[in-house]
Order: sequence, then C-alpha cells, then structure tokens
Amino acid sequence: MSRLAPITLTPIGHVETDVPDADVPRRRREMIAQIVLDPRWAQALVGIEAYSHVTVIFWMDRLTGPPPELLVHPRGDAELPLTGVLATRGRHHPNPIGLAVCELLEHRGHRLRVRRLDAFDGTPVLDLKPYDHYDVFTDIREPDWLARRR
Amino acid sequence: MSRLAPITLTPIGHVETDVPDADVPRRRREMIAQIVLDPRWAQALVGIEAYSHVTVIFWMDRLTGPPPELLVHPRGDAELPLTGVLATRGRHHPNPIGLAVCELLEHRGHRLRVRRLDAFDGTPVLDLKPYDHYDVFTDIREPDWLARRR
Repeated sequence: MSRLAPITLTPIGHVETDVPDADVPRRRREMIAQIVLDPRWAQALVGIEAYSHVTVIFWMDRLTGPPPELLVHPRGDAELPLTGVLATRGRHHPNPIGLAVCELLEHRGHRLRVRRLDAFDGTPVLDLKPYDHYDVFTDIREPDWLARRR
Repeated sequence: MSRLAPITLTPIGHVETDVPDADVPRRRREMIAQIVLDPRWAQALVGIEAYSHVTVIFWMDRLTGPPPELLVHPRGDAELPLTGVLATRGRHHPNPIGLAVCELLEHRGHRLRVRRLDAFDGTPVLDLKPYDHYDVFTDIREPDWLARRR
C-alpha cells in the first residue's frame, strides 16, 4: 500500500547537552540543552524569539527496531493498567519520534538554547514549531492516575 | 556529519477525510477526519480513549523539495514582518512534518475519528501522542499580531 511506503528525511540539526543519558528521564522537566541546526537553516529561525516556547520533534536514534511489546504498563508501574504504546508517552512507539514542548531561552544564529528538551546528547532534530495558543487546550481529559500527578 | 545522516521510517497509517484539499486551510479548526492505522498497530491504541485530545504527527507528502524560500510573511500577509519558516506554522519547513493537536472523538480498533486534523486525504501518519497536562503552557509569549487573532 503506497500510503505506507517508506519515507526518507534528513535531520535539520542535533541536540547538545551536558546531561548524561541516564539522567535525562529524572531531569526532563528542568534540563537545559542546545539545538544546533545545520548552519544552512540559520535564516529559517529569524523571529523565533518572539515565542516563549517551541515544540521540538526529534528522532530517538538510540532505539532501533519495532517496540518490544505493544501493551505496556505506563511508566513501568505494574499498578497502572496495560495500555497500548501509542496511548502512552513512553519511548517505544512504532516510529521513535520524540516530541517536547520546551521553553526557548536564547536564539543565536543557528542555535537555540531551551529548557525541558528530554533528548539525549547527539539526538537528531527533525523539525520544530513555535508553540502558540492554538496548541493550548485547558479543558482536557486524561487518565485519573496521570491527573493525580500534576 | 553522521548526526545529519538520512533517516528512513515507515508511516503507521494514513488520514481519510471527505474535505477537499482546497478547503482544508479554511476548515482546519472544525474538520473531521479518520486516522486509519496499519491494522498491525491496533493493539498499540488500547486505552487511548482515556484522553480527550491527541497530537498527530504527519508527513505532508504533497510537498517535495526544500522550502522555496527561508524568509516568508506569515500567512502570506505582506503587512506581517518577514520571518524564518521554522518560526512560522506554515507548511514549508525543511522537513514537511505536520503537527496538530486534535480532539479525539472515537476509537474503534485501528481507527480514530478526530476533529481539527488539518491534513489532506491520504496523508501518511508518522506517530501520535496522547495530549496531557505536560503539553499545556498557558503563560506563553507569542507575536502581537498572532495574539490579536485569538
């Protein structure tokens, strides 16, 4: 089926951070990282500092192959109900695409400094989008266990 | 540079909608579409109905080649300042990846019915994520012209 034909794309840049891989999960809400774009895209960032937040789409290249299982306990917690991987924010999706809304701290040329990008050092970046009020939904429903962890 | 080496991935499904391509921009805030996953991923959706919203990541396959220009007037409005394409939500990013937060209306097997997915009929879907309170930032800064269009 041609709609499922493979797609090839080239990263626009990569992530640089001092945070060791093993510490990323624990520090994901406060860690600081740089997004370093291929310099040919520097001009494509003009004006991004008008936004306080950006959504970063990245490729979790440490993962290879399909998810080891399609049903998991969210966050590895056996007390939480078995859930399909696409219904969790865990890393093992069919395509290992990462998505993080980050605070934009600084823009210099082809570099952005951000807070809250939970990606490993060296991770390829596929795209980024300015975060705006069309992305904000405050009247949302989520599982009870997650709502309790605000 | 290996960090920018090409990446190949396989879509997890595609979009079906009755909305003609030409009407998608105008109807993007209310249009209804189905996300039809490859049936082998059906189990990966178990439990997604616990969420009211999902973020859909798709591949805008009607676009080919790099952006025709790196600086654009947002929404084609010559009164708005020239802005880098990565600092806009326009379609012409270096990688034509689409991102939409959608209202989840129904989940049946390998199909989701959603509102507000601004993708053309047949568009490949790369990934989806349940939308949760970690995605919500209400104290944001955006350009004045955009804030005025709430």
